[in-house]
Amino acid sequence: MTATNLSPSLSALLERGTITRTLGLDIQKLDKEAGTLEVHYTATNDFLNPAGQVQGGMLSAMLDDVTGILVLAMVEPEGFGSTLTLNVSFIASAKPGLLRAKAYFERQGNSVCNVRGEVWQGETLVASASAVCMIRRMR
Amino acid sequence: MTATNLSPSLSALLERGTITRTLGLDIQKLDKEAGTLEVHYTATNDFLNPAGQVQGGMLSAMLDDVTGILVLAMVEPEGFGSTLTLNVSFIASAKPGLLRAKAYFERQGNSVCNVRGEVWQGETLVASASAVCMIRRMR
Repeated sequence: MTATNLSPSLSALLERGTITRTLGLDIQKLDKEAGTLEVHYTATNDFLNPAGQVQGGMLSAMLDDVTGILVLAMVEPEGFGSTLTLNVSFIASAKPGLLRAKAYFERQGNSVCNVRGEVWQGETLVASASAVCMIRRMR
Repeated sequence: MTATNLSPSLSALLERGTITRTLGLDIQKLDKEAGTLEVHYTATNDFLNPAGQVQGGMLSAMLDDVTGILVLAMVEPEGFGSTLTLNVSFIASAKPGLLRAKAYFERQGNSVCNVRGEVWQGETLVASASAVCMIRRMR
């Protein structure tokens, strides 16, 4: 994982999760001002449905990951996010290999925030999601 | 994977998907009359978020799997299902190990069907989902 402009504490936190390696997470660009995060994932041959496409659930795992990381980046250091709901739309099929994901921070309230995520392969939007996350204050 | 009362053709189809092994799918009981499917999954140490819990996205992958298999079982042999949307609620945290999942076939229309899924660990409901699946006719 490249820790491009993530805080050292968030990078260290993410390194503790094995899901990071399983999904092949590679952080590309965090823009806290715009509220966006761009990452890469690698869909392996272990993720495939009987048709040889990336199983939709594994795309959901990527969408949960990219939206969750953006929330952590936006609310740190005093806040921590837990996803309450993830609503995924499957739009096109994806093959094993590189997937680009982007998350957009849409709204921050006192206790919940709304985030949107997309997974792309080449120029094709493969899946999108809306997540509602609860924000807990640590201090 | 135990192919308990799944049709041989559906069992063979599922065996072609690597996601079956990745999620540790073990079919327990298909009841086509009731429209229900019970399966087991095994959450491995590769599925964990930084808190050491099963990442919500991997629970979503299980919910996509169990609902998708029930749809295939209900519409075979002439139909084939593709999931359009998966709306997941995360309810409790789960540890690595055995997870029990159940899917309920709620409604079959001409071109779409509605399915609900649950993932349990012990006596705790960990996550639930509603899926909308498109049904395509092969013949």
